[in-house]
Amino acid sequence: MTNKIIKLFNIEYPIIQGGMIWCSEWQLVAAVSNAGGLGLLGSGSMKPEVLRQQIRKTKKATNKTFGVNIPLLYPHTEETIKIIIDEKVPVVFTSAGNPKTYTKFFHDNGVKVAHVIANSKFVSKCEQAGVDAIVAEGFEAGGHNGREETSSMVLIQAVRQITNLPIIAAGGISNGQAMLASFILGADAVQMGSRFVASTESSAHINFKNEVLKANEGSTKLTLKQLTPVRLIKNSFFNEVEEAQLNGVNKEDLQNLLGKGRAKSGMYNGDINDGELEIGQVSSLIKNIISAEEIIKNTINEYNIALQRVKKEFSGF
Amino acid sequence: MTNKIIKLFNIEYPIIQGGMIWCSEWQLVAAVSNAGGLGLLGSGSMKPEVLRQQIRKTKKATNKTFGVNIPLLYPHTEETIKIIIDEKVPVVFTSAGNPKTYTKFFHDNGVKVAHVIANSKFVSKCEQAGVDAIVAEGFEAGGHNGREETSSMVLIQAVRQITNLPIIAAGGISNGQAMLASFILGADAVQMGSRFVASTESSAHINFKNEVLKANEGSTKLTLKQLTPVRLIKNSFFNEVEEAQLNGVNKEDLQNLLGKGRAKSGMYNGDINDGELEIGQVSSLIKNIISAEEIIKNTINEYNIALQRVKKEFSGF
Repeated sequence: MTNKIIKLFNIEYPIIQGGMIWCSEWQLVAAVSNAGGLGLLGSGSMKPEVLRQQIRKTKKATNKTFGVNIPLLYPHTEETIKIIIDEKVPVVFTSAGNPKTYTKFFHDNGVKVAHVIANSKFVSKCEQAGVDAIVAEGFEAGGHNGREETSSMVLIQAVRQITNLPIIAAGGISNGQAMLASFILGADAVQMGSRFVASTESSAHINFKNEVLKANEGSTKLTLKQLTPVRLIKNSFFNEVEEAQLNGVNKEDLQNLLGKGRAKSGMYNGDINDGELEIGQVSSLIKNIISAEEIIKNTINEYNIALQRVKKEFSGF
Repeated sequence: MTNKIIKLFNIEYPIIQGGMIWCSEWQLVAAVSNAGGLGLLGSGSMKPEVLRQQIRKTKKATNKTFGVNIPLLYPHTEETIKIIIDEKVPVVFTSAGNPKTYTKFFHDNGVKVAHVIANSKFVSKCEQAGVDAIVAEGFEAGGHNGREETSSMVLIQAVRQITNLPIIAAGGISNGQAMLASFILGADAVQMGSRFVASTESSAHINFKNEVLKANEGSTKLTLKQLTPVRLIKNSFFNEVEEAQLNGVNKEDLQNLLGKGRAKSGMYNGDINDGELEIGQVSSLIKNIISAEEIIKNTINEYNIALQRVKKEFSGF
């Protein structure tokens, strides 16, 4: 089997590991790429020189294609991009900004570009910018998310209806049967975040990984909507935010309550009570910490089983 | 093709028309059942004697199986149930209450029971109650919805992992490719609401139907979470609610702001500014008002096309 995304990135399987802050360092990225997927460094939690070291370590650990996820809203974005070009990283995933700003520059330097959107109204901007692929990220996804709250079931179809660009479905996907379902809705590949947080190689703190395993439906919620909506595990910090919001907190006080460094303290340092724990709804379906290679093998195996089931057991009307 | 739901309800296609308040009177229900699906009267907006008349009219208009949706939280539920038994309605869909209360009574009177849940933790209650099928309703769905905000992509799988009961997927589904995707995730049938609101036979006011056609991603939102979460189209009333919530409104004042009769005034009488317009996210994919028969034919046709595409074009790894 091959398709547009496999060819675009020269990978074996159309499975992308989301470039998540605090969870996606070189060990995970190299393991995913070595196993036939596409690993992405999460530059959102890396100062430029840290990113450079991470890129170099990744290159030593794999000969396969890997990439960097870049939220375009940080003050040091220009420097981050310079390092990516310097270090000849072959792929970037951009988010939280206008794809027109850097896509041509990346292409001129031989870098492939996928851009993350949460609303099909941004498809035309992606096409005009000339991106190589679109990541359609549904409401289910962990971390920062769109204000429209559109779920993957609706979003993938909405994006597919108006573009021929390759689509990478993200949000609510942790296994091979969801991968097949997303392909039927119009996707060419899947990006999984939460599933890779709970991997042996992820740099998430073990306390955070354990919270992911404990999560049930309703354990995560999109919150902080007055600032930037973000999906978090419900913990003491989350409860404080919800209470403040019920009491009509203003933006400034909410920003103060959030403060600085909560994502690091929760996800990287393991403060599960007062940290920000960014994870997707699909955490409720994740019940083990396994290696990135096992995740990819399992996903492909489940995909094959689901596909065989459809081919053998499903009939038309 | 046949399956558990087709056999259970003795219908031709595993497509259920959601029993929506103010939109699901006998004309729609009979049209859906005559076209091979399962039509459901929406008793949530009918006084008992109105329901009796609606059942009688439906029986005159179709010989096929049809049913009644009953939210179990109304004061006149006992009377509603008595009429359903009296009139020998073959199927009920119950929601917003404990399935144990009435399921045995329904079965003793020859009525099949499907129960609506939005969280897999209620599966065991459904199994203990002995229901015949479970409706798994995702966050995308219009109207009243679960507090966990779990999307269909995650919920269908979560329910399937722990039960062998037939599953009817609801939320985010308006066409045949979403039907196939939901089957891959574990469903045996789909329930479509929004798609049937925008049908010729639905009793929704034409102003409301037109709002459904105009909806884009982000045009609906789950709101009134301090009371009972409900997905509405954003209009003047919705904006008032959101503003009050931002200002820390208490439950009582929110209840007063909601008042009484807003769903009727919006959905049935066409007050699109100050009424409650309950509709699903998938309204953004709905672009025409067509007959119930066409909706079912199109859905089956799209399902067949999607299935053929998978069988012919998809290969394993």
